[in-house]
Amino acid sequence: MQEAIRLAHEGMRNGEGGPFGALVVKDGHVIGKGCNKVAAQSDPTAHAEIVAIREACRYLGHFQLEGCVLYTSCEPCPMCLGAIYWARPERFFYACTKTDAAAIGFDDKFIYEELEIPLGERKIPAEQLMREDALKVFQQWSALGNKFVF
Amino acid sequence: MQEAIRLAHEGMRNGEGGPFGALVVKDGHVIGKGCNKVAAQSDPTAHAEIVAIREACRYLGHFQLEGCVLYTSCEPCPMCLGAIYWARPERFFYACTKTDAAAIGFDDKFIYEELEIPLGERKIPAEQLMREDALKVFQQWSALGNKFVF
Repeated sequence: MQEAIRLAHEGMRNGEGGPFGALVVKDGHVIGKGCNKVAAQSDPTAHAEIVAIREACRYLGHFQLEGCVLYTSCEPCPMCLGAIYWARPERFFYACTKTDAAAIGFDDKFIYEELEIPLGERKIPAEQLMREDALKVFQQWSALGNKFVF
Repeated sequence: MQEAIRLAHEGMRNGEGGPFGALVVKDGHVIGKGCNKVAAQSDPTAHAEIVAIREACRYLGHFQLEGCVLYTSCEPCPMCLGAIYWARPERFFYACTKTDAAAIGFDDKFIYEELEIPLGERKIPAEQLMREDALKVFQQWSALGNKFVF
């Protein structure tokens, strides 16, 4: 965790993005690490956890982090929590909370609150279109043999 | 939406990942598009919406999608919904639902359900460590002048 906090500090000092750091450990070795790079890469998805998960997956050559532990200097936002669930490390550790992040101006807590509101009533409007057409592709997926399971 | 569904079909047929497609439109022009590339890129974060958002942000040279509309062939999972909130398009349209995705074996609905459970009681265990040390970096961030707001 000390290293995740160091990465958070370094990224902030270098102007890469917000003050967040994360790393992925497997069998005692760091296999992915990162800081928030949203500003440096003009990429709203370049949160520390996402950067670290992508690096660890590239290292393993696989989209699952079996047997890995993730350390992040702040409780993951819904995007990063989702990424953790898709990557499936064994467990994760965090330092600051979403309330601490909100106190310095980040939207993590707001996004968690939006998730509790029905889809059509949230701040970013969402509408459904063409479900029947899209379902046809889902049906073709179901009929496929030998496919990856995510 | 027809194009998002076409991308979903194409990506599935090419074995890039699950049957999902998305695109970002600004002023009537497509500025980012993608399909799920989780398998092809060994990247659990390479969902269609994330691929499309990253491409659109690269095009704009900015981490915000002001004035943009996103189309996705399926209701975004929590990771992608989080990414949409960080990128802040004006609105989005979706076709299939998270229940449709669950019916063909994807975890979207499960992850939404996990978000409603307290952090320490979820399937992937989470523990807090070293909050006081990480808070020092947050305090330094607060004291910075001239910083990006996310």
